[in-house]
Amino acid sequence: MQDLTYWGSTLRLAVEVAATLAFALSGLLAAARKHLDAVGVFAVAFLAAFGGGTLRDLLLDQRPFFWVEHVHWLWGLMALCIAAMLFMRHRHFEPTERAMQWPDALGLGLFAAVGVDKALFMGWPALVAVLMGVVTGVFGGVLRDVVCNEIPSAFRDHRPYAICAFVGGWAYVGWWMLSGSGTQALLVCVLVAAGLRGLALWRDWTLPAWKV
Amino acid sequence: MQDLTYWGSTLRLAVEVAATLAFALSGLLAAARKHLDAVGVFAVAFLAAFGGGTLRDLLLDQRPFFWVEHVHWLWGLMALCIAAMLFMRHRHFEPTERAMQWPDALGLGLFAAVGVDKALFMGWPALVAVLMGVVTGVFGGVLRDVVCNEIPSAFRDHRPYAICAFVGGWAYVGWWMLSGSGTQALLVCVLVAAGLRGLALWRDWTLPAWKV
Amino acid sequence: MQDLTYWGSTLRLAVEVAATLAFALSGLLAAARKHLDAVGVFAVAFLAAFGGGTLRDLLLDQRPFFWVEHVHWLWGLMALCIAAMLFMRHRHFEPTERAMQWPDALGLGLFAAVGVDKALFMGWPALVAVLMGVVTGVFGGVLRDVVCNEIPSAFRDHRPYAICAFVGGWAYVGWWMLSGSGTQALLVCVLVAAGLRGLALWRDWTLPAWKV
Repeated sequence: MQDLTYWGSTLRLAVEVAATLAFALSGLLAAARKHLDAVGVFAVAFLAAFGGGTLRDLLLDQRPFFWVEHVHWLWGLMALCIAAMLFMRHRHFEPTERAMQWPDALGLGLFAAVGVDKALFMGWPALVAVLMGVVTGVFGGVLRDVVCNEIPSAFRDHRPYAICAFVGGWAYVGWWMLSGSGTQALLVCVLVAAGLRGLALWRDWTLPAWKV
Repeated sequence: MQDLTYWGSTLRLAVEVAATLAFALSGLLAAARKHLDAVGVFAVAFLAAFGGGTLRDLLLDQRPFFWVEHVHWLWGLMALCIAAMLFMRHRHFEPTERAMQWPDALGLGLFAAVGVDKALFMGWPALVAVLMGVVTGVFGGVLRDVVCNEIPSAFRDHRPYAICAFVGGWAYVGWWMLSGSGTQALLVCVLVAAGLRGLALWRDWTLPAWKV
Repeated sequence: MQDLTYWGSTLRLAVEVAATLAFALSGLLAAARKHLDAVGVFAVAFLAAFGGGTLRDLLLDQRPFFWVEHVHWLWGLMALCIAAMLFMRHRHFEPTERAMQWPDALGLGLFAAVGVDKALFMGWPALVAVLMGVVTGVFGGVLRDVVCNEIPSAFRDHRPYAICAFVGGWAYVGWWMLSGSGTQALLVCVLVAAGLRGLALWRDWTLPAWKV
């Protein structure tokens, strides 16, 4: 039994590391494309990785932030940025991006689940909790793009991304109301959101556009 | 007497709905012009309608936000976005924009009054309270434009907009100090700000430019 | 002895005024370059001067903000904006910018020191406190550039700016741990950060770029 708990927490840590790494790398690549300097690389990678959760905690009026409680993640992010600037060449950008799609989908699900969980726990209404999940999963990328002087790709690429987190968030709420188990609901949310995102990538789904 | 209160609260609700609708539509149109997808349309409409009040509440450290307390407004906004994406054609953008100028002016006055009211009630100094009114009325549009990758039109179109909210805010402070009645002051603020904005639109006033 | 305290507080006030003035002027110049109107000029000057400290206080969940406690600074900023719009001509932009480099370096050091001080006092970890110092010193300019629809120059000009604040912040932490005196540590931080920034300007140092 203890073994199972151990494996569970190890698995969760592995998913968290992979997801945050994928988000941070998306920031790194955006910064590299804009030829930012070392400060900009760190700032954009930080925003991409921790911006969504930080904005959620600002809105929920929650402290401390994740990166204040777990300072070693900040040291890790700095090391990652320095390593990337030393070793990543231009031709590695695209393969990196493609390789990161799957941990990114996992991260979307995980971040959304954590956001919904926090907001529900504070007694916020279901719709708002689901939106807080979406903010957690998506607004890191939004802040990254705003600072890089782009319209956020989550708002304009006509691919289901925030929608997957939205559906996953409702799956959380539904499962939690039926079963009362937060842990199960979290797992369901990750599976639904990441699964949908994976399907969307695999089947190349697009969102409806304006009829103009 | 009860009738009067009933009509008063109905009127206020009608003004609130019209004002929020005008702000949300400004977001919708901006999103449509940039060809954003459904997620972007909702996000930008949300920012335009509720961004100013949310930023004010963040600065004042007030919770819950309006849209957390009144979740049905969020459902309404979603329905509006879906309806707009289905039924609004390109040729309807301009007429919509012109038709929205008057509820928008009302909204500017109403939002400013609510912002000044909240900040004064918390004991903030008069100038800061007036600025909080301006933030409530204007920063929804500022956030909308920043996310759409434009310089905020409130900062650059040389039309009196924030200035009207600023003057209206001082009218609030003045009336409130003389009469002690918050309700009257709120009404005065709406009249002054919306009236000035209407005058500015009608007479085509412009702000002084840089002497270069 | 009383004389010394008097001179100390006068000196500190002078440094604060010069530093805030330098930051506000950087906002004014950015607004002038983009031909913003009076509202935009004030908004961008405000963000440049007070945006970093305000963001830090939002993150630390601290109130009141500096500009709420000291409202006369807001009146001063308004007067400055009006004076600048009346009297500053295009040909004065560049000399102003160069003349402002030294008070700006002082401001970077001072703002960073105040930020580190506040965060350490609240018990946040050293690295986070140093980053809060950097945010205080640098994010006014970042917000200024985001609103002006530019990639923040602090992230892209390959000159040591945030790095100077970062090193100065560690100098604060180190001195404070050794001596226990916050006042001394504040002075050391200002000297190190402003000194480094001055050196970087004088010797024309650049940050390493991406190897592409």
